Order: sequence, then C-alpha cells, then structure tokens
Amino acid sequence: MYIVGAGPGNFELLTIKALKALIEADVVLHDSLIGEEILEKLREMGKELVNVGKRKGSKRRQEEINELMVRLAKEGKIVVRLKSGDPFVYGRGYEEVKVLRENGIEYEVVPGISSITIPSFYEIPLTRSGVSKSIVVIPGNIKEEEVEVLLKNSTFVVLMARDYAENVKKVLTKAGKPEDCPAVIIENGTTKKGRTIFCKLKELPEKMKEVKGVTMVVVGEAIR
Amino acid sequence: MYIVGAGPGNFELLTIKALKALIEADVVLHDSLIGEEILEKLREMGKELVNVGKRKGSKRRQEEINELMVRLAKEGKIVVRLKSGDPFVYGRGYEEVKVLRENGIEYEVVPGISSITIPSFYEIPLTRSGVSKSIVVIPGNIKEEEVEVLLKNSTFVVLMARDYAENVKKVLTKAGKPEDCPAVIIENGTTKKGRTIFCKLKELPEKMKEVKGVTMVVVGEAIR
Repeated sequence: MYIVGAGPGNFELLTIKALKALIEADVVLHDSLIGEEILEKLREMGKELVNVGKRKGSKRRQEEINELMVRLAKEGKIVVRLKSGDPFVYGRGYEEVKVLRENGIEYEVVPGISSITIPSFYEIPLTRSGVSKSIVVIPGNIKEEEVEVLLKNSTFVVLMARDYAENVKKVLTKAGKPEDCPAVIIENGTTKKGRTIFCKLKELPEKMKEVKGVTMVVVGEAIR
Repeated sequence: MYIVGAGPGNFELLTIKALKALIEADVVLHDSLIGEEILEKLREMGKELVNVGKRKGSKRRQEEINELMVRLAKEGKIVVRLKSGDPFVYGRGYEEVKVLRENGIEYEVVPGISSITIPSFYEIPLTRSGVSKSIVVIPGNIKEEEVEVLLKNSTFVVLMARDYAENVKKVLTKAGKPEDCPAVIIENGTTKKGRTIFCKLKELPEKMKEVKGVTMVVVGEAIR
C-alpha cells in the first residue's frame, strides 16, 4: 500500500517514486481534485481507478475510505491512495496512516509537490530577500477571530534551524507556544542519512547539539 | 535553460519533468545542498556538474552565478540550474529568472518538492483536523523582535479560497495587510487550464467572480 502525493495536477509533476508506485498498483483510490491528465494516463495504463473524493454533495465519509483501503490491502491488492498535492499538508494523510498501522498493513508514504508550491510554476516568489522571509498558510474558510491566535495555533516550520536552536526556542515562545509544546528536529531531509529527533520546545537547544547536517524544526500540537 | 527544483535529496523524489530536463542537459549548475545520491546519478549519466553553492567560506556571489548562466546559455548549451527543494521557496529563483528575462534567454521553471514538505516523508502532519489548520514557515535566524510583525510581513498562501474571497480580504486586513497589497488568484493549479489573476487585496472579491475551478490566493509584498 502506498500513500502518494500526486502534486499540482500535471502528469510530469509526479515524482519518479510516485510513478513507480502507480506502475505497480492494482487499484488506485483517488481524490476528486486529482488532475484529469493524470487520471487519463492511469486509464491508458489499464489501472482500476476508484474516486473516493469527498466533495460537496458526496456522502462518502472518511470511515468508508478507511474500510475500503483496509479491505483491498487484506485481499492482497497493491493499492495506491493518490492524494492531490502532498498527503500530509491539508490531506488527512495522518488519519489514514493511523488506520493502516492499527490494521497491521504495510505501507509507504511518497511525498508530492504541495499546492503551497504552485506559485513557483508561475514564477511567483513566496519569499524575497529584503522583502519577506516568512510564509503563512491558511485555508480560505479561516475565521476572522482566529487571526488573533494565528501564531499560537499554527504549526511552525523552521528552515535552516541547526545553528539557531536557542533563537528558535525564544522566537516560538514569543509567538505563544508553551515550552512543553511538541517539536521535532529533522536532519538531512529525506536522504538515507535523514533522521528525526522528537522532543519538547524547551529541549531544542540541548537536542540540537547532536545534529550536524542540514536541519529543519517543526513545532506545534499537530505533530504530537 | 531550465530552473529545476531537485526536492529534498532522493533521486526518486525528482519529478518526471525534472528528470527529462536533466537528461537533456549539457551542464548542470547545482547548489551545495543537492543530495549526493542525485549528484552520483548525474555523474553516471555523464553530465557536467558545476557546484555554484554559496555556503560558508565560499566567496562565490549571486552575480557570478548569473553571469555563468547567461554565458553558458548564450553559447547554446542546454543548462539546468538545479536548486534543492523548490526554486521559489527560499531559493532566489526570482532573482535568477529576472536575469534570464533581461538577457532574453528562454527558460522554463520546473517546481520541486519544497523542504516544507519533508515532514510528510516522516508521516508528520503539518495540519490536523481540529488541532491546527495553519502553517507558519520561518528561517532559523529570524529575529525575536520580528515576531510582533510576523503576520504583517509574511506572504500569505490561502488554500481553497474561491468561495471565501470576502472572508480572505477581511482576515488578511486584520492580519495587517494594507488594502492595496499585491495579491494573485491562481485557478486550476499547474494544469493546462491553470491561470493567474493579479490584483490588489481589496479587489479580491470582485476578481473572484470570474473564477470557477480549484483556487488559491497569494498575498504579500514579495509577489509584486
């Protein structure tokens, strides 16, 4: 079973790894937002496609999707759960992975190009030297009153964090995070040397001492 | 000339489109952070690799990179400028594209998996239903005093924005954005039907009336 990010819609913006999983697949369970171009290619490849999207008017619920994934996997089928963008950015990847774990089903997660990166395609920079060095991602239906607690409630992604552990702790405390807020240090990206160190916000400076490579930090209740 | 995002380090997390550009390339100008696994494969493919990374101790400046890109392209070489992660998220893609435009060089941008998506690979959710629905991305060296103006200075990425234009305007105004702040509506991702509508924050509700597909909005000074 593979949980695969399909990226922002074009077949060629699938990763090599996503393509390999799709070639192997017996069944593809996909969202409603998957690009038509990708679905067309999958049909040409003779794949069985099941639209499990939860759009307006549809009554399908997450539980039904979970049951279907588990049933197909237990029948011995190679299943690709294909999600638009990236599975873990507004994608319920977390819930689905939890179900697979609870049912003892082996799976692999294949990241995809998140919608957050779509501006890149149009040459629109999200950060610019001397103009803006931070990005805030929100859903359109966020409530006006949530703005006041936006920093406190957000998940923080801190890039190039290794040499700034003490600063990161200070900055996030100032942004409203409690000192026992869950945090994770990710060293060396997704390479073979990649690894994660889970801790609390207050422990960041101590834990960072073990780290040598390129490092990011994620802090927030969502990662608990 | 291609400006290509190499993603988070693994060869298989290159996109199909990135691989096609690399197969075509005569020369690859790459950052210091590009995964060793990717460089190894490119060497096997017989590609000429030039490390133009600007890491500590290196004196190479952005101007030298710009000059090299322009010179090679004018010599008729097919050049891939390979950037770790995504070219437009903390990547100076904007500056380099500007230089190419000014020199009349044809180019294409190929988005990559941004470092922001690395947690996905480790099954760490950035958002979670009922826990956190927003993400803040910052560099480790952000200053403590910048927290107070973090929302005001950030680029906002608003997902699933189509039916909430009036709300988005209100929320971002509350977050400190002036009403004539630059904004862009992106409809239908990066697919063939994809398009952008540039406007000002105050014009969002009016401009959104033309839009039917899946839509995101980006607001901030960086996109001007």
